[in-house]
Amino acid sequence: MIKTRDDVSKLTITRMAIYYNALKRMLEDGETMCLSSQIGQHTGISSSIIRKDLSSFGEFGTKGVGYRIDFLLRWIGEILGYNTVWNTIVVGMEMPLLSISCYQNFLPPGFRIAAVLDMDERNYGAMIPELGLSLESIRNLEAVVFKKQVSIGLVAVQPEQAQFVTDRLVAAGVAGIANFTQTQVTVPESIALTQINAGPMISQLSYDLARSVPVLQSIV
Amino acid sequence: MIKTRDDVSKLTITRMAIYYNALKRMLEDGETMCLSSQIGQHTGISSSIIRKDLSSFGEFGTKGVGYRIDFLLRWIGEILGYNTVWNTIVVGMEMPLLSISCYQNFLPPGFRIAAVLDMDERNYGAMIPELGLSLESIRNLEAVVFKKQVSIGLVAVQPEQAQFVTDRLVAAGVAGIANFTQTQVTVPESIALTQINAGPMISQLSYDLARSVPVLQSIV
Repeated sequence: MIKTRDDVSKLTITRMAIYYNALKRMLEDGETMCLSSQIGQHTGISSSIIRKDLSSFGEFGTKGVGYRIDFLLRWIGEILGYNTVWNTIVVGMEMPLLSISCYQNFLPPGFRIAAVLDMDERNYGAMIPELGLSLESIRNLEAVVFKKQVSIGLVAVQPEQAQFVTDRLVAAGVAGIANFTQTQVTVPESIALTQINAGPMISQLSYDLARSVPVLQSIV
Repeated sequence: MIKTRDDVSKLTITRMAIYYNALKRMLEDGETMCLSSQIGQHTGISSSIIRKDLSSFGEFGTKGVGYRIDFLLRWIGEILGYNTVWNTIVVGMEMPLLSISCYQNFLPPGFRIAAVLDMDERNYGAMIPELGLSLESIRNLEAVVFKKQVSIGLVAVQPEQAQFVTDRLVAAGVAGIANFTQTQVTVPESIALTQINAGPMISQLSYDLARSVPVLQSIV
């Protein structure tokens, strides 16, 4: 059985996914065992945070010897739900964040893109060779979610349509939403949600710099 | 003078950028005044959080009357450093997150892409018509940062090169780093950093779903 705790933070989950990616690269490089400090070298995350994150889910490593990489990968994969197929629907082509050809590389293991819907009817039927799918109309949303047993929706529409599309996805029966628009959306409590507002997140830089680099700062 | 507080959280800054985008759309729609509840309708963020965020930076609105949109836009823009030009360099074409043609729409106001560097020498010289720039070699990094007075670096290389490229950007003199890779990086304390690990962030969904949808969950 997997030990899980309801109070595990979203940041811990994000870091677990980062450890998973690093461990996979280490395994591909032929390594079999690793210390938390080596995961740290590959991820930029401190050993103490890594050990604390991992211990939220049980006792993995042996002191001084470290972790078996293949075991740790399977375990983290199980925790993160990577061993299940999650049929995923992409709604919208307004993707400053998502280059369609990179979707499958970028998505975690288990996520399978089942359909891509577009708001612009001029694009319907266009092939996406990398996915072996053609663009479908937003009108098909409910039918596609039902027919393809979709559990996750990626929202990449214009910000003013984000909430409307999210509501339709939830009503159609998806269990999780990833919002990639430049705005935020709300969902009922039973629905999983992650908001990846990258444009707004980048503003943290100009905010910090505008305060720390007075010579470049404009005058009010 | 702008009131700023050192303890303003990154989440508040991200939300301020989301309010900015919403206010801009409201202004374009011909509106001149707004209540926090209307900003809430456009952003999915609760009125009380909006009022609290805005009041971190001073008193803007009039009770019952609301905010002057043009004034609020200028003020938030000033706080977020949008009124300054930030020369930005993009390193790497491994961009599950960034479709190059969308860069300028996606970046906050003030961010100006001054150069795009690639690790793959086969791509050098390729034009990016949307930006009026051609792809340059990673070998030019230091020279480009100096010559074009670059203050911000966007890192979109393979994860195993993320720290190395970040170190070079910092050594070359950039003041802020946005890391778009599937791993994390570290920077000296004087450097601004935002980590947008979208792939790992999406794992929050499968983690939540793997626990809440037992019928779909695989068996250990």
